[in-house]
Amino acid sequence: MTGIDSDSARPDETAPATFEHTRHKPPSSLTRPREIVLVCAPMRSNVNVSNIIRTAGCCGVPRVIACGDAKIETRVARDGAETVDLVCRRSLPPVLNTLRAERYRLVGLEQASGSQCLPEYAFPRKTALVIGNERTGLAEDVLAMLDDVVEIPIYGLPHSLNVANATAMALYEYCRQYPSG
Amino acid sequence: MTGIDSDSARPDETAPATFEHTRHKPPSSLTRPREIVLVCAPMRSNVNVSNIIRTAGCCGVPRVIACGDAKIETRVARDGAETVDLVCRRSLPPVLNTLRAERYRLVGLEQASGSQCLPEYAFPRKTALVIGNERTGLAEDVLAMLDDVVEIPIYGLPHSLNVANATAMALYEYCRQYPSG
Repeated sequence: MTGIDSDSARPDETAPATFEHTRHKPPSSLTRPREIVLVCAPMRSNVNVSNIIRTAGCCGVPRVIACGDAKIETRVARDGAETVDLVCRRSLPPVLNTLRAERYRLVGLEQASGSQCLPEYAFPRKTALVIGNERTGLAEDVLAMLDDVVEIPIYGLPHSLNVANATAMALYEYCRQYPSG
Repeated sequence: MTGIDSDSARPDETAPATFEHTRHKPPSSLTRPREIVLVCAPMRSNVNVSNIIRTAGCCGVPRVIACGDAKIETRVARDGAETVDLVCRRSLPPVLNTLRAERYRLVGLEQASGSQCLPEYAFPRKTALVIGNERTGLAEDVLAMLDDVVEIPIYGLPHSLNVANATAMALYEYCRQYPSG
């Protein structure tokens, strides 16, 4: 898909479109359940984890594994807390070993050497997307276990996205590649 | 770009990649400044507005117009508060009239009839991306002023994204279409 790069903001003079609010429409349907699993390192903020779970619910992610002492705040996660199969585990490495045995590709979201640019990365359908801590990101021992690392291009200060926003971008890209599951 | 849909999570058995943390890398460079303007309706939460400004800074968005009584929380917005040219205005309609006169295409992010699917929408480079209130979205009088409405596909509960996460997805898509400005 190529963007339009035109001097004219309004190339055609057809009748104006009319838009009417339709909040909380029925969701887009999937022809098969998604096979992405979202895996979160221990986080500092339960608001961030809860926010991520809300987005996961909206994206049709069936399963989230949150490590550490995650407490879901339902005022933030909304119905995502009920839709998503949420499992809490102590630490990442055993979770990643299990997912590897289940034949998921382990894909970290991190600023790292050897990373691939998110918009150029072709996600395997069966992806475990691994999200790091807000401050410290993904630890070295976790990075060493990953198959791929994807990175969101950053064009200006503060040079790092909020973790929930970064996760939203990565899930958006996955869903863009698999619009029907 | 097509995703890989393979039964095998690890199709090749080449040597494993090594990844090394490089947080706060220098940003990707733009060959010319972005021409997107981000416009926010009056919001309930200054955290949401501030979060949006952090993302705007990361995406190289040069200009944000926040309506209503927005107060930027720098702990959330980080350096985004300084990088982005931020202007506060009372209400959206006069802002949209000005941007229209400056030949921006007015593109709302909303669940609406007549909307286009975000991943299928070709952004004009000169876009004013208009974001609605967390609860009420974009008002009818604002919708009537827009050229296009884009909508993020939703696949499950809670059927609506947090406004900052939705904005992150839309800015990601714009940057994906204009990786170098």
